[in-house]
Amino acid sequence: MAGFGTVGQGFAEVLALRKDFIKERYGEDARLVCVMDSSTYAADPDGLDPLELVARKKSTGKVGDVRYQDSVEVMKSVEFDLLVEVSPTDVKTGGAGLKSITFALESKKDVITVNKGPLALKFGELVSLARKNRCKFRFEGSVGGAMPIINLCHENLVGEKIASIRGIFNGTCNYILSKMDNGQTFEQALKEAQQMGYAETDPTNDIEGYDSACKAVILANSVFGRDVTFSDVEITGISSITSEAIALAAANNMVIRLIGEVSPTKLEVSPRLIPKGHPLSIAGTLNAAQIVSDLAGPISISGRGAGRKETASAILSDLIAIMDDRKRT
Amino acid sequence: MAGFGTVGQGFAEVLALRKDFIKERYGEDARLVCVMDSSTYAADPDGLDPLELVARKKSTGKVGDVRYQDSVEVMKSVEFDLLVEVSPTDVKTGGAGLKSITFALESKKDVITVNKGPLALKFGELVSLARKNRCKFRFEGSVGGAMPIINLCHENLVGEKIASIRGIFNGTCNYILSKMDNGQTFEQALKEAQQMGYAETDPTNDIEGYDSACKAVILANSVFGRDVTFSDVEITGISSITSEAIALAAANNMVIRLIGEVSPTKLEVSPRLIPKGHPLSIAGTLNAAQIVSDLAGPISISGRGAGRKETASAILSDLIAIMDDRKRT
Repeated sequence: MAGFGTVGQGFAEVLALRKDFIKERYGEDARLVCVMDSSTYAADPDGLDPLELVARKKSTGKVGDVRYQDSVEVMKSVEFDLLVEVSPTDVKTGGAGLKSITFALESKKDVITVNKGPLALKFGELVSLARKNRCKFRFEGSVGGAMPIINLCHENLVGEKIASIRGIFNGTCNYILSKMDNGQTFEQALKEAQQMGYAETDPTNDIEGYDSACKAVILANSVFGRDVTFSDVEITGISSITSEAIALAAANNMVIRLIGEVSPTKLEVSPRLIPKGHPLSIAGTLNAAQIVSDLAGPISISGRGAGRKETASAILSDLIAIMDDRKRT
Repeated sequence: MAGFGTVGQGFAEVLALRKDFIKERYGEDARLVCVMDSSTYAADPDGLDPLELVARKKSTGKVGDVRYQDSVEVMKSVEFDLLVEVSPTDVKTGGAGLKSITFALESKKDVITVNKGPLALKFGELVSLARKNRCKFRFEGSVGGAMPIINLCHENLVGEKIASIRGIFNGTCNYILSKMDNGQTFEQALKEAQQMGYAETDPTNDIEGYDSACKAVILANSVFGRDVTFSDVEITGISSITSEAIALAAANNMVIRLIGEVSPTKLEVSPRLIPKGHPLSIAGTLNAAQIVSDLAGPISISGRGAGRKETASAILSDLIAIMDDRKRT
């Protein structure tokens, strides 16, 4: 596992919680043979104790005793068959995550990631590399956290011709807009979101729609087979939405939501009017998506878009899919 | 295929629409070797033309030239490896559907059904029979039409501990309650639902909650491993909901929805207050469900609960899952 922040620690906890489940389903443990944080690592071919790692990180700030410079060198030094890449997102260069994922796929290892940077920048290259080397490459948690949208499109809806996906891909914006529905100004709602820990001190990435745009790119590439990057998205954020606009929408039985729209020809993030009672009119920090396809019509899904356990649950679902697949072959 | 009403014809059309998809994915066609309606059948070991059957049914009222008395005798006379059972629902005895499904599973054939009667009455027996004979037995379309709830719980969320499911399992009731939100009385809304073709002339099965209760039973047995039938459900319908109750809910920023609640200890269908903006506050004929689990938290899904193409799409998803599985082994 590369990365041991909130999501990495959450996934370590989930591995401990699901130890018996995994043992029973596969007849063996999922061994954590190496874990890196940003500067140190711990490794043991017999398997590390995930909860011990979480405790050590909490008390010392580091996951391991050994310092390292280059994650690829660390990966070269251990035997592993799957990389869980959960290092911090860098949407400008792809960061260490892009290097680690590339190395793992080149080495014919399966990869699970929730890291939006590499996916928004180099999706096509990474998927081709995985295909060439017959590796599994899964990234459910990169869009919508616990909301199972990518696997839903790829697996449950594989017989459908999907025409479009419209969704709420940023819980912070949805929280702010929901608070504005209840009469707060944008500034009041943003301040409250910051106090609640939903928005960062510099909220630009969320409120200007950049985070939603990354997710739209991932869906465009993975569900619609497009070849687009962040700069291809038409983006309008929510910072200029006034209380008057919200009130006018409400008078027409509508709410305003920040919607990412993805289709074979569209790639856009912008505030939209949504009728109350519509599946995308949901309130709070939830993420949601509506998938429109030729047979099923509109199918909507919502769930928690972020969170320690919640994002870890998406990684677990990818891990189970990969282990099921290995068991079969 | 046993049954050639709306859903059966819809599935025949879907088979024609997805002919190329199936051929490409599996290297062979899905051949329809025998189709029965309530009194006749057509059979051809080389495969019937699904669109010709639909046309014949439309022009003559019958799918085939040969009359029959007993669906089991027909099945004995043809070679097949999968039964699609879509005959009319009989929740008192299970009807012809129960007989056909039982015979198919006893003969070690895979079965896909959307028929709520056999599932609500004899779930445990049918699942045991399928397990004993190593057959696939799938029924996604029996709950929520195109909304992929059963496969979502069994596959995407297999690593979750599901604590409860609460859902809107009847689109007719939801349509009526949504119209009451807009100021209609129950009687006006019901009349409109009947004019639109959403409610039957005798609307008892929908408005008294019996249809929702069948679906709650199927979820209780299939997702929670319970062994319950229709008579175990505590049922309250929507016929006594007044405009005053709706107005009072609205004044508190709530709506009233007919909710089925299923958990290891609960099995109930009753009108509930749902906050506006909640995933279960949706309007119109949609079905919806909220699945609460230990890691992901609440995941909600909604979609069209009925319809020719929509229910057929659920059958298609089950067919693909079965064919994928056969391809692997």
